[in-house]
Order: sequence, then structure tokens, then C-alpha cells
Amino acid sequence: MSHITYTQQVGAALDRVLASTSCSQLFVLVDENTSRLVLPRIGSERLRSADVITIAAGDQHKNLDTLAQVWKALSDKGATRQSVLVGVGGGMLTDLGGLAAATFKRGIRFVNVPTTLLGAVDAAVGGKTGINFNGLKNEVGVFATASEVIISTCFFDTLPYQQLRSGYAEMIKHAMLDSHEAFMALTADAPQAVTLAQVEHSVELKRRVVDQDPHESGVRRVLNLGHTVGHAIESLALQHGRPVPHGYAVAWGLVTETVLSHLLLHFPSGDLHRLACYVRDYYGTPGITCDDYSTLLELMHHDKKSRQGEVNCTLLNHIGDPVIDNIITADAVNTALDIMRDYLD
Amino acid sequence: MSHITYTQQVGAALDRVLASTSCSQLFVLVDENTSRLVLPRIGSERLRSADVITIAAGDQHKNLDTLAQVWKALSDKGATRQSVLVGVGGGMLTDLGGLAAATFKRGIRFVNVPTTLLGAVDAAVGGKTGINFNGLKNEVGVFATASEVIISTCFFDTLPYQQLRSGYAEMIKHAMLDSHEAFMALTADAPQAVTLAQVEHSVELKRRVVDQDPHESGVRRVLNLGHTVGHAIESLALQHGRPVPHGYAVAWGLVTETVLSHLLLHFPSGDLHRLACYVRDYYGTPGITCDDYSTLLELMHHDKKSRQGEVNCTLLNHIGDPVIDNIITADAVNTALDIMRDYLD
Repeated sequence: MSHITYTQQVGAALDRVLASTSCSQLFVLVDENTSRLVLPRIGSERLRSADVITIAAGDQHKNLDTLAQVWKALSDKGATRQSVLVGVGGGMLTDLGGLAAATFKRGIRFVNVPTTLLGAVDAAVGGKTGINFNGLKNEVGVFATASEVIISTCFFDTLPYQQLRSGYAEMIKHAMLDSHEAFMALTADAPQAVTLAQVEHSVELKRRVVDQDPHESGVRRVLNLGHTVGHAIESLALQHGRPVPHGYAVAWGLVTETVLSHLLLHFPSGDLHRLACYVRDYYGTPGITCDDYSTLLELMHHDKKSRQGEVNCTLLNHIGDPVIDNIITADAVNTALDIMRDYLD
Repeated sequence: MSHITYTQQVGAALDRVLASTSCSQLFVLVDENTSRLVLPRIGSERLRSADVITIAAGDQHKNLDTLAQVWKALSDKGATRQSVLVGVGGGMLTDLGGLAAATFKRGIRFVNVPTTLLGAVDAAVGGKTGINFNGLKNEVGVFATASEVIISTCFFDTLPYQQLRSGYAEMIKHAMLDSHEAFMALTADAPQAVTLAQVEHSVELKRRVVDQDPHESGVRRVLNLGHTVGHAIESLALQHGRPVPHGYAVAWGLVTETVLSHLLLHFPSGDLHRLACYVRDYYGTPGITCDDYSTLLELMHHDKKSRQGEVNCTLLNHIGDPVIDNIITADAVNTALDIMRDYLD
């Protein structure tokens, strides 16, 4: 498991980490946004002498072309197995950067500096790297652990509000796996600026789960809550050329899978109602129609957690009590999508 | 470490392995040659119902385009994490197939059925997967272990003689790491058809080394003997558009690095002379000139075992006594290349 530092002094933390690493050559991976908005603010001595690799921002660039661009830059600049890649960006960047590092010369070390709330609570920790391929989210990737993750809230002030809400949805997911108290607290107010302590609480829940099952052969699948449906909605939006933020898709997926939890496992209707109203108020609607159902179902079959021709979901008996590996029929999925749309549309 | 079966009944062995595997869908990866010459001869019940993915043969196709073709075929045919990919081919195919499997949906299981001597003694065992990238051998890849390797000599009769000699060179390398007796035995005759017992002896030497150090952080580098110079010669040939068989490059690399062992570690001249004459007689010459030296040196700097700006070689005190991590000066490399050419040209 990665070592995680929670700090508002990112530059100093990074210098400390890199000083204790025998690193022959340092590379920093940024996108067009973090290059401009974050890199100049990090204040790391060591980063100043690093080779900078800049990629295009946005999930539509989380693809093989961008991955090959990073490999080529590392190769052209003579990176060796002793080199270290520091990824400074959101989940797209740390996912792609982690994969680039893990596959360059069969693996070099990498450090993640997430700059979005979503990146901090979701992507940067847990060893999942990947790119989208063949119209499917993270179809290509490996499990590879960052040697260090440095988490701070100090870059979040430059985020558009959709980005903040996107990360907040993953925090709600963690809260639903954690306790009723955590769920009530997060949904008491609009998605808003979060404290470093709140982020740490959310990340540490994930870390405890991942530690038990790094390669997702069992219990880690609880973290998939909201994601079987959420990923399908996200892939559909990508296919239609109008990508949605990951966390929005997760929020819609959470509502749909909580409907399934209510229908199949007697999840309480009060909590379902509270979640659905919260998502309606702050995340709106996915804007799907009945005509999309068969495509969504097909996409759910492609989910990495699914066996062939099955839809496999994590559901909740109640908040804090997840159940993995529920096999869901097409009829149940369709019904849940109907009810989700009744709530949100 | 992979489980290895040595057998002449490949089909039966494969059926046994697959029967004990909970595999939702079976894929078999072949190239144009093994599709025609090997697949019909395997005689496996289970392979008959597998989805076949066929790629172009030859190291020039060990690239990102072919890798993406395999990913796309797996994705289009709905492969899941429970699917298994059986790679039937030489080292190019098992290297690329292993990488495709290890990175598809963050890793599916794969079985290697090497069909060349080189593939059997070198590529199929040991967990190194990869593709060539940016003009460099295996610049992109991961360490990923085949769940099973099935080794047989029964397909070698369809190999061109260059292919057999290519594998024989890796057996000579293993013999030089093993014992004087093994070296004398292998170099007593022309490279020729080998027995399954000889192949097993050679593979088991490699397996013992890999078991001690799967990710090549130390002792595994002994297996790099001949490869620092050999890979550079191979990459140069690729850049010039006239690829050479891997084992030929290794044979030339072995001579060059044995010259270095003689110059720097007092490796006995008698054994050097025997090796050089053997390589001259059966592998000819790389046909390089002084003008190529600087490019070769640059390529050696890119070697995965090298730190920046250094050439790192495994050398031999004497046969059976390797020394890893020798840092070689440019002058010494140039001298050794001169002497190698004196022997071989």
C-alpha cells in the first residue's frame, strides 16, 4: 500500500519524499490546467529541476495516444528504472500516469499529487491505473501502487464547482459504506469546500478496504457501490460525445443501485429518498431515455467485476452494511432505471 | 512463479490445466505461422471452442499496434476478468500476449505454449512481458507471471534453422552461467535438434534464478549475460530495417561481453576462444563498423538495467561464476567491439 501524507505543505512533503528516494532522474507529469494553475504553486525545490511532461486535460484524452505520448517522452529523455514520475493532476492524470510508470521498462516508481477532490478521495489511492479503450472506461490498466501519495486541499480552490461536486459524490459513497452518521453529516449541506480532516476520513475508509484486498478479488468490491450503473452511464455519455464528470455518473449510479438495494435487500426507503433528493438537487439528471436501456445493460456486462452476460452490483442492506456480488436481472435493472428517472428527471 | 509442464502431449496437458481453471471464456492467441503450423496439431479439446486471435508474425510487429489489436479483440468478444488467454507462439507472441493479458481489465490469466526453442528457454518463463517501442526492445512491458507454461519440443521440427540456432544461443548463455561441463557439452557439436531433457535442464537453471529475484532487483541480472551488447546490436539492426534473430544478437553479445570478462575479470582466454570460434562458425558476424559504435553505446545507455549514462553488464570471472552490475567505460566497450569483430568478421 502507498504511504499517504496529508498536508497543506505539498512542496516540503514532496522534497522530503524525494530526498529519501534514490532517484536518478525526476519527471513531473501535468496537464494543461495543472501546468498553469498548480505546478507554479507547489514550491518544491526538487520539482524545479524535473523534466516536465504536459498532456491534454480531460477524460477524452485518457487514451492510448496520450499514454504513448508519455512513454515516448520518458524514452526520449532517457528515463531509467531508477527514475521517478510525479503525477500532478486529477484522477485522469494519476490513472494514466500510474499506468505509464508501471509499464515503462516494466515499471518505474511514481508519486501521486492529486489536485482535485475526486482524485484525492478516489483515484490517487488504491493502485488502480488505467486508460479508456474501445469506448470502455479503464478497459486497459494494471494494479500498481504509487510509492507515495501527497494529499492536500490547497489546490481545490481553483476547481470548477462541477469538479468539487464530482469528488463529493465519492465521499457520499464512502459515507454510505461507513455509517449512517457520516451519511447524514455529508448530506446535511450542499456539496461545498471540504476540510483536510474530512478528506482524510474518507480516504482512510478506502485505504482500510484496499489493504484487505488490493487486487479486488473480494471485499474491495464494496467500493464499487454506484459504479456498475455509474460507469455504464459515463461510457454511454462518452459514446454520445457529451462526457459527464465521473462523480456525477457515480451519484446517478448510487441512486439507481440504492433503488436496487431497496427492491432486493430492503434498504430503508427514508434513506433512499434522502439520497435521491440530494442527488436531484445538486447533480440533476443523466438525461437518459428508455431507448438507452439496452446499451446501458450491454455496458454493464462489460464491467470488470462482471462475469460474462451478468450484471454484478454491490448493494446495501442498509447504510454501513454492503453486500458484494449481487447478480441483477435485466428486468430489475430496467425497473431501477425507471425509478431513478422518476426521482431525478 | 509459473507452473511448468514438460511434455510431448501438449493437448492433453492443456486440457488438464484448463479443466482445473474456472475460466469463463477461452481465447487463444496465434500468429500467421502458428495458426497454420501448430494450432491444428495441438489436439486440445478445449482449444477447439476457443476464440482465436491471430496477429502478424515477426519481431517488427511486436509493437503498440499489435498490442492494441489484441486488446480490441478481447474487448469486442466480451472477455471478462475470468477469461484466460493461451499464447501459442515464439517469444514475440508470448511476450506480447502476456502484456495484453496483464493489462486487459487490469489483468487476466494467461498460459504460454512456446513453439520455438528460443521461446521455451527464454521468453515463456520468468514473467517478463513487453513490446518494442520508440525503436527500443521491450521498452514497454510489465512483470507478469503466466499461470502455466507448457513446454514441448514437438513443434520445433517446423522451425527454420536460424530459429533453432537463436534458441541454442540462449542455451549456451545458460550453460555459461551453469558449469564448464554444460558449456563444453553444448559447444561440442553444431547447434542441432535438442531433447526435451536438455530444454528442461536449461529452463530449470533460469527458473532457479528467477525464483530468487522475480523483479530483477539483483541476482536475476546474471541472466542478462550477453544481452547489454546483444540488445544494442538487435536494436541497431531494427533501426536499419534489417532485423536479426534475437539469439544471433545474444551470441554476438556473449562474445563481446566475454571479451570484456577477459579484459576486466581475467576470464580464461581458452574458453573465450572456444566461444568466439563457435559463434563465428554458426552465427557469422553482426556486420557492424566503427561508425556504429556511438549508436550502440547510446543504445546500451537505454538498457533497462542501466542507470543514466552508464553501461551496466553482467560479466563472468569464469564459466559458472557470474558477476552482476559491472560498470563499463565507453573505451572498454569500443575495445571489446573491436576484438569481437576481429574474431567474427
